[in-house]
Amino acid sequence: MTEYVQPFEAGDKSQLDLLGGKGANLAEMTRMGLPVPPGFTITTEACRAFLERGDVPPELPVQVRSAMLRLENRLGKRLGDRHDPLLVSVRSGAKFSMPGMMETVLNVGLNDDSVLGLAEASDNERFAYDSYRRLLQMFGRTVLDIDGARFSDALDERKTARGVTQDVDLDADDMRALVDTYKQIIAAESGAAFPQQPSEQLTACIEAVFASWNTPRARVYRRRERIPDSLGTAVNVCTMVFGNLGADSGTGVAFTRDPASGAAGAYGDYLPDAQGEDVVAGIRNTLSLEEMHELDPASYDDLQRVIRLLEAHYRDLCDIEFTVERGTLWMLQTRVGKRTAPAAFRIATQLVDENVITMDEALSRVSGDQLAQLMFSQFDPAAERTLLTTAMGASPGAAVGTIVLDPQRAVEKAKDGPVVLVRKETNPDDLEGMIAAAGILTSRGGKTSHAAVVARGMGRTCVVGAEGVEVDEANARIVCGDVTLAEGDTISIDGTTGEVFAGSVPVVPSPVMRYLTDGVAAAEPEAGSDAALVPAVDRLLRHADRVRRLRVRANADTADDASRARTLGAQGIGLCRTEHMFLGERRPLIERVILADKPEELKAALDTLLPLQRSDFGRLLESMDGDPVTIRLIDPPLHEFLPDRTALSVKVAVARERGDVDPEDVRLLEAIERLHESNPMLGLRGVRLGIVVPGLFGMQVRAVAEAAAARIKAGGTPRAEIMIPLVGSVMELHLIRQQVGHVVAEVAATEGVELDIPIGTMIELPRAALTSFRIADEADFFSFGTNDLTQTTWGFSRDDVEAAFFAAYLEQGVFTVSPFESIDGDGVGRLVRIAAEEGRSTKPDLKLGVCGEHGGDPLSVHFFHEVGLDYVSCSPFRVPVARLEAGRAAVAG
Amino acid sequence: MTEYVQPFEAGDKSQLDLLGGKGANLAEMTRMGLPVPPGFTITTEACRAFLERGDVPPELPVQVRSAMLRLENRLGKRLGDRHDPLLVSVRSGAKFSMPGMMETVLNVGLNDDSVLGLAEASDNERFAYDSYRRLLQMFGRTVLDIDGARFSDALDERKTARGVTQDVDLDADDMRALVDTYKQIIAAESGAAFPQQPSEQLTACIEAVFASWNTPRARVYRRRERIPDSLGTAVNVCTMVFGNLGADSGTGVAFTRDPASGAAGAYGDYLPDAQGEDVVAGIRNTLSLEEMHELDPASYDDLQRVIRLLEAHYRDLCDIEFTVERGTLWMLQTRVGKRTAPAAFRIATQLVDENVITMDEALSRVSGDQLAQLMFSQFDPAAERTLLTTAMGASPGAAVGTIVLDPQRAVEKAKDGPVVLVRKETNPDDLEGMIAAAGILTSRGGKTSHAAVVARGMGRTCVVGAEGVEVDEANARIVCGDVTLAEGDTISIDGTTGEVFAGSVPVVPSPVMRYLTDGVAAAEPEAGSDAALVPAVDRLLRHADRVRRLRVRANADTADDASRARTLGAQGIGLCRTEHMFLGERRPLIERVILADKPEELKAALDTLLPLQRSDFGRLLESMDGDPVTIRLIDPPLHEFLPDRTALSVKVAVARERGDVDPEDVRLLEAIERLHESNPMLGLRGVRLGIVVPGLFGMQVRAVAEAAAARIKAGGTPRAEIMIPLVGSVMELHLIRQQVGHVVAEVAATEGVELDIPIGTMIELPRAALTSFRIADEADFFSFGTNDLTQTTWGFSRDDVEAAFFAAYLEQGVFTVSPFESIDGDGVGRLVRIAAEEGRSTKPDLKLGVCGEHGGDPLSVHFFHEVGLDYVSCSPFRVPVARLEAGRAAVAG
Repeated sequence: MTEYVQPFEAGDKSQLDLLGGKGANLAEMTRMGLPVPPGFTITTEACRAFLERGDVPPELPVQVRSAMLRLENRLGKRLGDRHDPLLVSVRSGAKFSMPGMMETVLNVGLNDDSVLGLAEASDNERFAYDSYRRLLQMFGRTVLDIDGARFSDALDERKTARGVTQDVDLDADDMRALVDTYKQIIAAESGAAFPQQPSEQLTACIEAVFASWNTPRARVYRRRERIPDSLGTAVNVCTMVFGNLGADSGTGVAFTRDPASGAAGAYGDYLPDAQGEDVVAGIRNTLSLEEMHELDPASYDDLQRVIRLLEAHYRDLCDIEFTVERGTLWMLQTRVGKRTAPAAFRIATQLVDENVITMDEALSRVSGDQLAQLMFSQFDPAAERTLLTTAMGASPGAAVGTIVLDPQRAVEKAKDGPVVLVRKETNPDDLEGMIAAAGILTSRGGKTSHAAVVARGMGRTCVVGAEGVEVDEANARIVCGDVTLAEGDTISIDGTTGEVFAGSVPVVPSPVMRYLTDGVAAAEPEAGSDAALVPAVDRLLRHADRVRRLRVRANADTADDASRARTLGAQGIGLCRTEHMFLGERRPLIERVILADKPEELKAALDTLLPLQRSDFGRLLESMDGDPVTIRLIDPPLHEFLPDRTALSVKVAVARERGDVDPEDVRLLEAIERLHESNPMLGLRGVRLGIVVPGLFGMQVRAVAEAAAARIKAGGTPRAEIMIPLVGSVMELHLIRQQVGHVVAEVAATEGVELDIPIGTMIELPRAALTSFRIADEADFFSFGTNDLTQTTWGFSRDDVEAAFFAAYLEQGVFTVSPFESIDGDGVGRLVRIAAEEGRSTKPDLKLGVCGEHGGDPLSVHFFHEVGLDYVSCSPFRVPVARLEAGRAAVAG
Repeated sequence: MTEYVQPFEAGDKSQLDLLGGKGANLAEMTRMGLPVPPGFTITTEACRAFLERGDVPPELPVQVRSAMLRLENRLGKRLGDRHDPLLVSVRSGAKFSMPGMMETVLNVGLNDDSVLGLAEASDNERFAYDSYRRLLQMFGRTVLDIDGARFSDALDERKTARGVTQDVDLDADDMRALVDTYKQIIAAESGAAFPQQPSEQLTACIEAVFASWNTPRARVYRRRERIPDSLGTAVNVCTMVFGNLGADSGTGVAFTRDPASGAAGAYGDYLPDAQGEDVVAGIRNTLSLEEMHELDPASYDDLQRVIRLLEAHYRDLCDIEFTVERGTLWMLQTRVGKRTAPAAFRIATQLVDENVITMDEALSRVSGDQLAQLMFSQFDPAAERTLLTTAMGASPGAAVGTIVLDPQRAVEKAKDGPVVLVRKETNPDDLEGMIAAAGILTSRGGKTSHAAVVARGMGRTCVVGAEGVEVDEANARIVCGDVTLAEGDTISIDGTTGEVFAGSVPVVPSPVMRYLTDGVAAAEPEAGSDAALVPAVDRLLRHADRVRRLRVRANADTADDASRARTLGAQGIGLCRTEHMFLGERRPLIERVILADKPEELKAALDTLLPLQRSDFGRLLESMDGDPVTIRLIDPPLHEFLPDRTALSVKVAVARERGDVDPEDVRLLEAIERLHESNPMLGLRGVRLGIVVPGLFGMQVRAVAEAAAARIKAGGTPRAEIMIPLVGSVMELHLIRQQVGHVVAEVAATEGVELDIPIGTMIELPRAALTSFRIADEADFFSFGTNDLTQTTWGFSRDDVEAAFFAAYLEQGVFTVSPFESIDGDGVGRLVRIAAEEGRSTKPDLKLGVCGEHGGDPLSVHFFHEVGLDYVSCSPFRVPVARLEAGRAAVAG
């Protein structure tokens, strides 16, 4: 027979799966000898059996009765007793905290008899009936699913009738009358009287917790968070203790350190003469722990002792819930507590200094996401500001700009200075406006709305769901309470906190960012300030550098970017996109390449580009001297360098109508039509261009080789690497490699230097990964282009679909996070793993890296470490994040 | 020490790798006791050693000398002897026949001395000097790489000087003079005298054969045919026999049966008093074997005996080369012979009837490609015709129609009767016109051009590269030499032969096709005619049906297609593309769905479509009653149902310029802009539409379920299956499956019938294949959409890239065949294999099929058999091909 019930004293914190988070930590505290009210946990196995059978397993009631009996014997009290009755609370507790499930029923065991016993034992009749009333209310609402308003309305009526406004102003008679009213409500609404039998109450509560596992809200949440439906929840049955028995009682929550700043020393709130639900309801102002000290020094000392024990035991910040019952401290819950980014860094290094944890452990306690938060620009903390409203921070950063309500106007106005696009909600048509804006503010939507998803994707500051802001498009203004701002007025939004300010708040780089980029640290930073964090961040980053196995490079196309990346710790360039060098004023030159009709024209056009590319590469190699610089040959389809087809078609047609057609436009349009592809992402690009357009790759390779030769002659140590994009078959690489090798050899001979330029390939098509054992024969290195690989593996293009359906996919749980943000381990990741393993089986010393944006994403960095890559490459700004996460991955094993 | 030399008598035909094709079959014939001139083979190992070292391995000359010695001793003749010298031929012979390699040097061993010996022994001075001259010519050209024109010019000069036109008119003195001239040419061109030492001649020939393995032409050929560079070629050294020693000598080629018609009985050409090269040169008319019988009955009888022995031994049609030297028959070569499609079917069944092979073997001797050839319509062989030009047949069949030069007009004109679309070349914009046309003719492009590839894909007759046809769009006419045809004139094109005829040539269905579709077979067909083939085809198809494990379904969207497919042997519908039901006059209805602004509008639009779809599905289920009908929910992006963006933008802009804008156009354009995607193939389509557009999939499912219910009530046995396109994650399928299940259950309840409608998914994205073990949980079947899977695995879209670079890729050997035609086993195939294995590991009874066009491709069918799929589905016309190939795959093991 399965044992479904486990007393607190029998378990420990390792039994998360069986006991849920709450139960496991209650057991752990019991084992530590801390004052936990006696009780037991009904295991998740019981819930799973319930879910499978559709009913409680037959042995469960017997086991619960016997556990209750042991509890009664131990405490010398009985459930439902006419004198000093035993009361219990029933709480759900799954492995992962989960909204939508039934939370708590208190005071189980009260009935028309035992309420008298409670009154007698507490010597407080009002307290007893108030407790009974609360049981009826919670039971009615959560177990019987009766509209909570029915109960609160009755309470309000009573108060009105008695001419009072506070619950505390109701006396015992009021409470007794409310008990009667509540019982009537229950009978009327559920069709049955409130069960007087305590064991019946208990059984109903347990079943209700089990059943609540499958509320729609809980299901949606699980789907979104990828929590298996099969886990089930545990149920904790715990002896009631009362914080509302007078001035020597109370209830509170505490953190073992300040979870906001990370400052050492316990931090918390205490509410005397109250139950937990009162704290949440915010009926009265809570006291600080210092104030509790004055009020009840003995309990305070007990609490401090427990806090020290817990932190020593859990070796981390804990948060706790506690109750003081007539001077006795009881622990109701604990867990490792959440904390802000600054607190995480501060606490991790503090614990090292206190000899509680090692540097490796400290590293595992901070995250790249937290570091990234510390690196975002922020509003000058010293500056004055006028808060308009606080909504949801959807994409971090601090943005200031003039208000624009229309995406098209945003594009125009952005030419004159930064704008903040304010919309009810955004849709794909707004994309250009979003790109042009410094920040985006919406009055609707949540963290998975279109605005939020797109803004995060492109790194724009974004605040969503600002319901307090009325977007009045007709009058080109926004109204927020009594403040009205017109288009053109300035607004400031904080994508981290979700705050919206009227007017311009000065933006400053964060102290951490200033330190990382300029090495500037405040001499005597204010304690608890972000500036004071710099040493902690520095220390943990350095430790990460010591332990990590992954090297970190940057994606950079210019010497400036490369220098910046190097300052931020980059150990080379993993991706230089040469096509970026064709933009701006050089566009006409590449246009000539595309429009060339004859081989001579093509050659002449390429010859013009050669010296420009050579000087680009020269500067890049100089700024990364001694470190590898991976140069990717031209990748995108050629028509990306030409004007838009539809726009030009319209222009020519209209001009024709007016009789003043520009023949140059006609020629351009013909070229565009010739090159037009329905799906350019799947068209003539990358290595395909190299094979089809004679001399294009050759020109680029020559530029690289000549630049490297010049650097060598100037005494430098250039480490250029040439990377071929979009290879799907070893034969493509074979053909190009021959060309490349030929050009490099020719340059080496002409210049009289030795050129060692490795030639590698992007792995960015599923087929490349699937045939990597062949491709490795022709490659010195693989660089995973996880952006394109994600596009082809999933069959969606980033540009098109993020806006079109990603919000729905996130909402419905198809994704937990965009696969363009964190690598999709099952699909794309499997291909990376195949290619890494099979590529190395062909060529054991094959160098492996990644140069998609995933290279700077924390989750993905761990994946790449685990798969055994040699390096990740990401945008310069993400280099410190990648360094930290590579270190964390290494210490995680 | 490796033995590099093997005498003919030591080998057999199994040693193809070691001896090459020619050597292995010479050895086999020797072993059979057939009259093969003695000789030996230098193995491919020697060639490989040569290629690795860049020189002959040191033991080789020794081994060759010792083999020659054995040959001399056996024959009692010596190389280079002054009396009756031994002469040998040297021929290359790789495992695969390969153009570009050195072919043959005859008469090796002749020099200034031995030519006298040959004259003496043959008693024919002219013959001796002619032989010497030939050696010099072949040696000069093939070993020393001297331009062959130098020799033939000298020969011509001699003939002119002597006032004759035929080689035979030159006498012994002429030949002696030519020998001198040729020796001078060799000395002048190569800088060294012709080697008089026979062993030196032999060594040079052997090395030249080895070296010819790496001629550019041979390398390109190997790359294209995927023949490994490492194989190497063998060299056959064979005693010379002479067919040019008088009327009792001769040379010939023969087939053991007629390779064109398949008629029983040997078939061949014989040329008395000639050497093999003379037959090829076509100097004189050859004799038939019957004529040889009259001329030289003894040799003829010998030949017939050998032919019977060879066919009994090889158990198949063999082709042979032979020489008769003064009444003695010598076999110079044999191999299993190539044959036409009719011959293949006829010979296979003949051999069964002769108890030579089993039906299983017979099946392995015919191919789906051959069957397809027999199924194409053809021009009535008896009809008169006017040939305009002959170009490249790119997609077989016979098409007659009026000329149309514009794809849009083709769509219109096709309503009045068949059209032939004539273009310089086609591009994706021509697609609708190509679909509407009966045939396509282009003046440019080759077999991998857009027109060719697309036409083959859709089974349209197509002729490409008709450079003789000038397409004069401005004057709406085509000019071909002195013939001018205007739009509206009739033209006939033969996609098999590439012939283009003016006017209408009557088209008749092939007899095989008539039999397959109508069961009509000629009562007493003319022997050797295609009509007489019907029994053989029928017999082999039936046998294939008996042995095959793969079931064959058809892709069909209408009841007509379905009935046709059933006649051709389809066992169900594997793919009904529901979007095809939205074209034509229903397009406005789907437009309403797309343009709907409000939920009510959307619902109303869907409600209008419901009864139409229901009746579509009803008729489809009726026509396939009892067999499965897999209905794929709407797949393509919605904007495919709207007008072209650029065209409409131009229209609106021009109208605006004129001041008469149609507001409906503006509204349409807005919708198009809203739905516009840069890469629609990677956009909002398939299951994504199902998740994002409420009610769309639901409407389709309801139509299927209601149609099935109505069929059940009418006494039918509908077996509808619902298929979800473009699934990449199990969660998508999970969400849709819930919706689908709900609708089906609702219809079943309303209609009071039991509905069993399996729900499956396309596997057409790499991610679906890679996570198939999860997706199988939610799927009753997988259907591989290998078209899309090829697109995403390779990262190229069929429409865009086939034209853009496939030609270059085929030319340079990246592909041997378009991966859209035959499945790419390494890449796409690996995903299919993964999904099949892992899907079944989750759900052992998961049904697996394929519905891409690969389902009707012979090579691919074998792959799908081997991977263990349950069925293939292809276009109705390909069903017999798939049946045959599935049978062949089954008997292949």
